[in-house]
Amino acid sequence: MAETDSTPSPQASSFQRRVPEGDSRERLVCADCGFVNYENPKIVVGVVATWEGRILLCRRAIHPRRGFWTLPAGYLELNETTADGAAREAFEEACARIRIDQLLAVYSIPRISQVQLMYRADLVSPDVAAGEETEAVGLFEWDEIPWEEIAFPSVHWALHHHRETRHEAAFVPRSNPPGETGDMRPLPRNP
Amino acid sequence: MAETDSTPSPQASSFQRRVPEGDSRERLVCADCGFVNYENPKIVVGVVATWEGRILLCRRAIHPRRGFWTLPAGYLELNETTADGAAREAFEEACARIRIDQLLAVYSIPRISQVQLMYRADLVSPDVAAGEETEAVGLFEWDEIPWEEIAFPSVHWALHHHRETRHEAAFVPRSNPPGETGDMRPLPRNP
Repeated sequence: MAETDSTPSPQASSFQRRVPEGDSRERLVCADCGFVNYENPKIVVGVVATWEGRILLCRRAIHPRRGFWTLPAGYLELNETTADGAAREAFEEACARIRIDQLLAVYSIPRISQVQLMYRADLVSPDVAAGEETEAVGLFEWDEIPWEEIAFPSVHWALHHHRETRHEAAFVPRSNPPGETGDMRPLPRNP
Repeated sequence: MAETDSTPSPQASSFQRRVPEGDSRERLVCADCGFVNYENPKIVVGVVATWEGRILLCRRAIHPRRGFWTLPAGYLELNETTADGAAREAFEEACARIRIDQLLAVYSIPRISQVQLMYRADLVSPDVAAGEETEAVGLFEWDEIPWEEIAFPSVHWALHHHRETRHEAAFVPRSNPPGETGDMRPLPRNP
């Protein structure tokens, strides 16, 4: 789950910020060809997937937060449904096959223009393995979770929201904890 | 709620499709400056907002589906939370002030790479008026809804999902009806 904005900056020589005709906001416009590069928030899809109550986590092999633990998650691709994207990420990052149960949470990280849709899911089997962007995977009991080495605030949120709702067959999806914006800062000790 | 993809096409002379280094998918890359135009699905945020049970609808003043009725909805902007975006759209399109209750539905329209987050909301007052992209607004009892003139399939879905859940204080958000992808086709008669 990447919470940095990986959009490359267009070269200053070609793109400039101005309000296109008929629009009300500044956009990046190419001075050479007039192409308007509409910038939109990005959608991250991910899962809290369990096998017999143990939670699937991945240790990141890539920046940012390389070496830290995260949930399987990543950018939704074009022409993909959110549930399909979450299942794809679980497979790409942890070679995990999952059955999605229901939407666990919708988090907004406005500083980096990211919306995260996290699903609750069951693993179809405990056979998981590190994918390309992953150093290691593990199935963790709650008390075994490496709380000091969690990659992002929203991973904390999703783990706790999963904990709160794990015995509920149906529930209202959670959103950001009150006052939380997802910005990185020293992470709280846990539990 | 626009369900067409309004991203302008970059001119063929500058942009070409290729797999950037370290990537696994084709992206639009500018042949002149090397800028990679990552294309991502877009997030639409909207509301089913009511006043004493009557539902707020807007008649579209813009293409596509000009003259047809829709729910207040539009693209999430950068640095915005989903709830704030939904409230902004209600204000921009219908001069409506709302209090968001809970997430009603998450719809995926994969053909046009769109994810729609629709909220259930209460109007703070019945004072609504047409915004810039709207020809007319109205507060409709269920039986008064202009079913033959609804702009998009997902507006139908959201209205029916709102109907199903209107007496529930808490509920699981809905997603696409089974087998439905949101593609435009002759709309069903209703109810």
